[in-house]
Amino acid sequence: MKKAIFPGSFDPITNGHLDIITRASHLFDEVIVVILENSEKRSAFTLEERLQFMKAACAKLANVRIDHDTCLTVEYARKHGASAIIRGVRSVKDYEYERDIASINQHMAEDIETILLFASPSQSFVSSTIIREMVRYGQDISAFVNDEVRKACVQRLKDEEGK
Amino acid sequence: MKKAIFPGSFDPITNGHLDIITRASHLFDEVIVVILENSEKRSAFTLEERLQFMKAACAKLANVRIDHDTCLTVEYARKHGASAIIRGVRSVKDYEYERDIASINQHMAEDIETILLFASPSQSFVSSTIIREMVRYGQDISAFVNDEVRKACVQRLKDEEGK
Amino acid sequence: MKKAIFPGSFDPITNGHLDIITRASHLFDEVIVVILENSEKRSAFTLEERLQFMKAACAKLANVRIDHDTCLTVEYARKHGASAIIRGVRSVKDYEYERDIASINQHMAEDIETILLFASPSQSFVSSTIIREMVRYGQDISAFVNDEVRKACVQRLKDEEGK
Amino acid sequence: MKKAIFPGSFDPITNGHLDIITRASHLFDEVIVVILENSEKRSAFTLEERLQFMKAACAKLANVRIDHDTCLTVEYARKHGASAIIRGVRSVKDYEYERDIASINQHMAEDIETILLFASPSQSFVSSTIIREMVRYGQDISAFVNDEVRKACVQRLKDEEGK
Amino acid sequence: MKKAIFPGSFDPITNGHLDIITRASHLFDEVIVVILENSEKRSAFTLEERLQFMKAACAKLANVRIDHDTCLTVEYARKHGASAIIRGVRSVKDYEYERDIASINQHMAEDIETILLFASPSQSFVSSTIIREMVRYGQDISAFVNDEVRKACVQRLKDEEGK
Amino acid sequence: MKKAIFPGSFDPITNGHLDIITRASHLFDEVIVVILENSEKRSAFTLEERLQFMKAACAKLANVRIDHDTCLTVEYARKHGASAIIRGVRSVKDYEYERDIASINQHMAEDIETILLFASPSQSFVSSTIIREMVRYGQDISAFVNDEVRKACVQRLKDEEGK
Repeated sequence: MKKAIFPGSFDPITNGHLDIITRASHLFDEVIVVILENSEKRSAFTLEERLQFMKAACAKLANVRIDHDTCLTVEYARKHGASAIIRGVRSVKDYEYERDIASINQHMAEDIETILLFASPSQSFVSSTIIREMVRYGQDISAFVNDEVRKACVQRLKDEEGK
Repeated sequence: MKKAIFPGSFDPITNGHLDIITRASHLFDEVIVVILENSEKRSAFTLEERLQFMKAACAKLANVRIDHDTCLTVEYARKHGASAIIRGVRSVKDYEYERDIASINQHMAEDIETILLFASPSQSFVSSTIIREMVRYGQDISAFVNDEVRKACVQRLKDEEGK
Repeated sequence: MKKAIFPGSFDPITNGHLDIITRASHLFDEVIVVILENSEKRSAFTLEERLQFMKAACAKLANVRIDHDTCLTVEYARKHGASAIIRGVRSVKDYEYERDIASINQHMAEDIETILLFASPSQSFVSSTIIREMVRYGQDISAFVNDEVRKACVQRLKDEEGK
Repeated sequence: MKKAIFPGSFDPITNGHLDIITRASHLFDEVIVVILENSEKRSAFTLEERLQFMKAACAKLANVRIDHDTCLTVEYARKHGASAIIRGVRSVKDYEYERDIASINQHMAEDIETILLFASPSQSFVSSTIIREMVRYGQDISAFVNDEVRKACVQRLKDEEGK
Repeated sequence: MKKAIFPGSFDPITNGHLDIITRASHLFDEVIVVILENSEKRSAFTLEERLQFMKAACAKLANVRIDHDTCLTVEYARKHGASAIIRGVRSVKDYEYERDIASINQHMAEDIETILLFASPSQSFVSSTIIREMVRYGQDISAFVNDEVRKACVQRLKDEEGK
Repeated sequence: MKKAIFPGSFDPITNGHLDIITRASHLFDEVIVVILENSEKRSAFTLEERLQFMKAACAKLANVRIDHDTCLTVEYARKHGASAIIRGVRSVKDYEYERDIASINQHMAEDIETILLFASPSQSFVSSTIIREMVRYGQDISAFVNDEVRKACVQRLKDEEGK
């Protein structure tokens, strides 16, 4: 069985992420979307919230499993018998960033491949950071995230302003 | 069964190609390396020679099949039930080139994905063009191609000089 | 009155070109689309055909004029009182190419500006070259050119094959 | 009347900015230079100082107006009837950054165009950040900013060291 | 006598740095590796530690001298009669960064050249930042730093965790 | 004695080339500018003309020698005891091109370094190709080449038109 992982912080999941997950699910027998927690980076949404968003977004993808961990990406891949790490690229900047990470990962685990999928042109400028910024300015984000995430983003903003 | 194709002109196959083929063979149940002939582009080696080089180079890769055709890449993938087109990238220039081709292919065949593998750093400057150029200047190419290809390249040069 | 030119070979005009022309027409009082002929480069369509395609495509854009010439871009701009040369960019490669041409043009005509518009993501992989290639492989190009151009491309191919 | 805006933090205005403003003023009937305040980012100079520097620098440009606001760039453009957002680009990094912002802006306001002008080669390495850094090391910045800004920068440094 | 400097923070020195230093030492009569301290940036290792690592690493390079200072790079070069500043580049991102710094330096000191050496492909993804990150995750870094640095990195981590 | 070579076709020499040569001459005890002939590429000017232009342009540079050969760049460097190959870079495209050539050269001759100098911003869009193109359109090229080259270019054009 061919297995791949799609690691990220997904803070929150965007339609760009979902597009990559859906396309990857056609390429492998199983795709594990894994939220890798980095204790140093503060997230906008809690791990529980991010997991719930992800589960809702991927509910219809039969061979996609959702997970979380705190280890290195290659360690996670090895533990779960995955031969590939999937990454989406949107730009030359992304490409160079991924190349360096992939080289390090190759050094640490020669048997695990990084594979790149091109972000769809219509989603190539979307990122979790931009989504959060748009919410802050009261902009409609319904083209970029699903409805559950959209509502949670708006609620989060209200909570913060209420403080 | 998950199938992928690795298309190219392979004129001739280099260790850079072989590295990508080997790594791809771990990711899919079957990888078809297909020499796609473009009638407009003259090749240094005949189709028969290129097929023979490829077969020799991939002899030990059990799940790699060698083929050739004259159709479009996506048509070939569809005919053979492949869900992925594999491409190696060595540079930003390669990345942008592949992105445009992948976008066209996505337009023509939404169900077939282009996936990129990073060329190994030690092979990232090797191309069939450079191999042919090095031979022309009498340089040793044994670090970049297998022995059969090396001998054929040297012989080809002698034949041309003999004319 | 603020005038700009949009120079090119338009061989043939694509929806990507039309998108840039339409958007430019909102920015200036008049936009002149000019087919600049370079005697060294052979075109797929004659000047007359390209002019006709362009006129049909731009028929509804009231402030867009179609023209042709054989002079340098900056000379054309100056002759017609245009203060801007409009260029669409699709990639880093385009960006660097345009930067060099713009620097030369700035040197030759300091009062004429090159301005870049970003190609729409959905059109960013389309070029006249790719359109012609797709036709040669029997692919549907109706998403990338208008109907008149599409028919002419198919007819051209038949004529060539009939030879 | 064709109107464009040139948004930024201008902290402080450099000759690179002034070059873009001057060139943009030839392309449009009116150019509004707008200091958009982002409450999260601390500036080196106060809004009042930056406005004063800008007014002095642009005093001779008859069709350039100076303004400030706290809204999104596209909202400002719409409020003031501008059809274009002008941005200067110095590098591939700038190009990719601007492309993403322009895509988001296009999504939020389809009728407002982002147009890029190439920074002049002689100013293409200048930024407000570098200016502030040079001052900190006691370097002469008179090639990159006007005299008023230069004096203010030096004074600012003295004040900070006096603390 | 032709002299060059190789400035950096070297926090800590990697095999990538040492490769550049060694290659530079063949090009010039003397190479001064200088740790330039920037008071604003906190380092992982103290100046003393970094100097010691560097001295050990370069012990066998007869024409390499180790130094430290707090001035600007070009000022240091001038003070010590060096005509060149050596920089290693690993990526397009590095290239553009170095180009801007070199332009500023050229402006401040026309007689001092910045010269670039390409990082060796096998070291092109290594940086002090990645080394420190790998240590934090308990990864083996012996392919990227010498033994003394490796031990110090591991010890540093233990000290921090012991706090 | 530290020696470097600056290889090229110099067809014809531009002020951009001369700028690199001059700057390189301060870095090394001797710089050999070598016109490497590639039998496959037709040049606009004969080898004799190009040598003469180069000699005139470099007449005042005491430690610059002019030469020509037909061998590979690294072979030339080795034959003449040079430890460095100097290349000027103007763009990301140049950077990636030079990186690949440098990797091949490193493979063939580990002891010979490729070093990059940044083209001066004011010359970064100039190339021999653009010079020849400008002449063809009757443009003034006196900002980009010396007077002897300018006259020869104009004469060459007249000769060709007279045919």
